Amino acid sequence: MSKVSHIGIAVDNLEKSIELFSKILGCDPISIEEVADQKVKVAIFRPGGEHTTAIELVCPVSNDSPVKKYIDKRGQGLHHISINVENIADKLDHLKSKDFKLIDQAPRQGAEGKKIAFVHPSSTSGVLIELEQD
Amino acid sequence: MSKVSHIGIAVDNLEKSIELFSKILGCDPISIEEVADQKVKVAIFRPGGEHTTAIELVCPVSNDSPVKKYIDKRGQGLHHISINVENIADKLDHLKSKDFKLIDQAPRQGAEGKKIAFVHPSSTSGVLIELEQD
Repeated sequence: MSKVSHIGIAVDNLEKSIELFSKILGCDPISIEEVADQKVKVAIFRPGGEHTTAIELVCPVSNDSPVKKYIDKRGQGLHHISINVENIADKLDHLKSKDFKLIDQAPRQGAEGKKIAFVHPSSTSGVLIELEQD
Repeated sequence: MSKVSHIGIAVDNLEKSIELFSKILGCDPISIEEVADQKVKVAIFRPGGEHTTAIELVCPVSNDSPVKKYIDKRGQGLHHISINVENIADKLDHLKSKDFKLIDQAPRQGAEGKKIAFVHPSSTSGVLIELEQD
């Protein structure tokens, strides 16, 4: 079974956005961490508690972060959704066979020991989709 | 406690997008319905099962649908997120007192007997947020 793991939101001022989302969601972030290879700092909220969908505020820490380029082009806002799947290699093979355009042809290492891969928005009605496997 | 109820995705061809998301999510939509006052047709996927975050494909059925205007301006893609809260009136009062810009000053009737209200993206780092109460 797959499920919505998190929603990624691109923001240009992490402190300010944390303050806003704390008020909207009625809770504090459960973690704030830097993801070096994406050159971003991420604040994670999980308002519904463990095993529920998280909201991740993603803020570039460098001008050559892909998220900085996204914000320059589109502005702040909803950036991607992440779907947790049981077997990411099988899922990628399946999508390839159905002519989906993949950003990552094979799973790569993500944060927290997860395997991840991105599917291109041109294949998915304009939505950047991350697949992840625990 | 609040939680992420659903993610709304604006699409311009509902049948095509249902086919794509069925493959990505590995499941069929649990319902397809027309929401008359928004002039849209909505396909709902709930890949993680009951009480988990849903993905809603939202397709305009008329040229004067607000979602049609959104797609014309921004293209297909992530459109809004919906947060389920215990007391929507209290939440709106709280956000007003903190100078959030509200699209709906008071809760209004949504689908499935829910009360809903939208918060303006200018207050929320560019994210259109729907609040809902069961």
